[in-house]
Amino acid sequence: MDFDNTSRTELSELGEFGLIKHLTQYIELTNDSTVKGVGDDAAVIDNGDLQTVVSTDMLVEGVHFDLTYVPLKHLGYKSVVVNLSDIYAMNAQPRQIVVSIAISNRFSLEAVEELYAGMLLACKKYKVDLVGGDTTSSLSGLVISVTAIGAAKKEDIVYRDGAKEGNLLCVSGDLGGAYMGLQILEREKTIFKENPKLQPDLGGKDYILERQLKPEARKDIGELLKSLNVKPTSMIDVSDGLSSEILHLCTQSKVGVELYEEKLPIDPLTFETAREFNLDPTLCALSGGEDYELLFTIDIGDYDKIKNSMDISVIGHITNESKGRLMVAKAGTAHELKAQGWNALLK
Amino acid sequence: MDFDNTSRTELSELGEFGLIKHLTQYIELTNDSTVKGVGDDAAVIDNGDLQTVVSTDMLVEGVHFDLTYVPLKHLGYKSVVVNLSDIYAMNAQPRQIVVSIAISNRFSLEAVEELYAGMLLACKKYKVDLVGGDTTSSLSGLVISVTAIGAAKKEDIVYRDGAKEGNLLCVSGDLGGAYMGLQILEREKTIFKENPKLQPDLGGKDYILERQLKPEARKDIGELLKSLNVKPTSMIDVSDGLSSEILHLCTQSKVGVELYEEKLPIDPLTFETAREFNLDPTLCALSGGEDYELLFTIDIGDYDKIKNSMDISVIGHITNESKGRLMVAKAGTAHELKAQGWNALLK
Repeated sequence: MDFDNTSRTELSELGEFGLIKHLTQYIELTNDSTVKGVGDDAAVIDNGDLQTVVSTDMLVEGVHFDLTYVPLKHLGYKSVVVNLSDIYAMNAQPRQIVVSIAISNRFSLEAVEELYAGMLLACKKYKVDLVGGDTTSSLSGLVISVTAIGAAKKEDIVYRDGAKEGNLLCVSGDLGGAYMGLQILEREKTIFKENPKLQPDLGGKDYILERQLKPEARKDIGELLKSLNVKPTSMIDVSDGLSSEILHLCTQSKVGVELYEEKLPIDPLTFETAREFNLDPTLCALSGGEDYELLFTIDIGDYDKIKNSMDISVIGHITNESKGRLMVAKAGTAHELKAQGWNALLK
Repeated sequence: MDFDNTSRTELSELGEFGLIKHLTQYIELTNDSTVKGVGDDAAVIDNGDLQTVVSTDMLVEGVHFDLTYVPLKHLGYKSVVVNLSDIYAMNAQPRQIVVSIAISNRFSLEAVEELYAGMLLACKKYKVDLVGGDTTSSLSGLVISVTAIGAAKKEDIVYRDGAKEGNLLCVSGDLGGAYMGLQILEREKTIFKENPKLQPDLGGKDYILERQLKPEARKDIGELLKSLNVKPTSMIDVSDGLSSEILHLCTQSKVGVELYEEKLPIDPLTFETAREFNLDPTLCALSGGEDYELLFTIDIGDYDKIKNSMDISVIGHITNESKGRLMVAKAGTAHELKAQGWNALLK
């Protein structure tokens, strides 16, 4: 797809079917299991003897994204990735997505194409087929709803409720970066509003900006664990924030947890930037959200298999439910783990 | 679910997880193929050797519905039914849905419960499991996105592209009713705005109001055709309007059509009401949309099997692509069939 940002085609010139036809011309199907894609009442997926896994997410302008600093192509990419992340969190392979978009007249065709190009880029990268959707008007903001469909062998699927006492709690990658990227973007937006002549100062912040604007789903972690012959006992992706996800695992598995603050994987840039904003890096890692890393538990007997994987950190262990959900701080004191979410960080 | 309309609980009191927990307590799963419903990263569906069929629709406040006259429970019901209709249009059985809702603070918990109760009522009626979703904030209106997942044997699935020259064009039920129901509701809204003391005059219009507010998907037509041993050669549901759907079938099947105006099934109340509004009943049937009837083509050899089915009308036949897409008017003149859509009706 080639974008010429100087042109502007009104969506009203195309009509709904024209828009759909225009947008869907770029779709290529790559999965054998996709029997029928866009263009009928429904997509058809043949999963043979595999189980089908479905996940859906909705992104709302002004709530989940701010178009003053989020490029539409990145937004499209991210809206797909966050759904794929849910499928990987089941230890399944995403294969298809359906996409619904509500857009107001203030968006041009070129803008919608950018959004779509980002979605298709994610589809290509993760080898997923876009097989259907709905495109409609909105009176004000942009709303994106993506449903991802995946498949896995029954015995491979990992649920949230399988964590057992004595299991190790692990997380992939590092945490808090996406949240700090957002802080940078919000700061530059405020400065820009006060003085539109100032250029945004994003220098040296590439990693955390990318964590926020163009996150990736951890397809590789499932593959790595498989190659190491480790099947997690429970798994979830980190979308709302680490604390919140740990509590989900504990609640559904009916277990307690002991999390070690000193084990939290925080990138130096995230740490530094948190300090710059007078924020506690630990709190950013615990409650920042949108990292799309995988949080999982493994049998302690599997520790030797994963201990040399640079991209997996053991951050705690599962205890009896009666022990509660605790974080052991660097000072050695134990605190009750709470899901604070984003708002708490800003108070 | 018991509704006490006098109470009002702010959504902010519950938080997202509280709201999800509160809403999902009413969900009952009925399909054996549902391995895992709400509560994990994704739903898990085991379709064994069947093909999986997926369809998605988005409904936006102010575009698809007007809450001044659409009760939330009806809206929830309809938002599910319109998706199931797409699955039936593939000659498949819907089995699961996932639902995403964006809601603003102006809605109370009770309002969301009404919406949800309508969705679950539709699930119950059509024996479908609600297996997942996303609930999020919106800055202004209500947005509902539903994705339906169905299953069918490979050999049973009916696409839009199978119509052949000589096939009969058939439609279930009657047309234009949902559109005339909307006209009644719009008229009463205008009158109410001018004089809020006047009670709405909806007397005698029950059938068309129900067609608009609480449509049903034609689950029965697939069953009927199966019992008659008739497999349609192509099929689509009537959501945008009959003309528009016929043109979709013709384009995808690369055929022409001859539609007979005199054969269009129009309920007497629809006809009468169209006259009352100085609208052409034929145009309402052709372009009204939202009837959620099934439009399909059958082999002419199957005519004897369906001719006594009161709920199926033969409205035309498929011709060679070179003959074009024509409607033969009552006067005998042939006109090119055009998809006019709703707006054209109001000019």
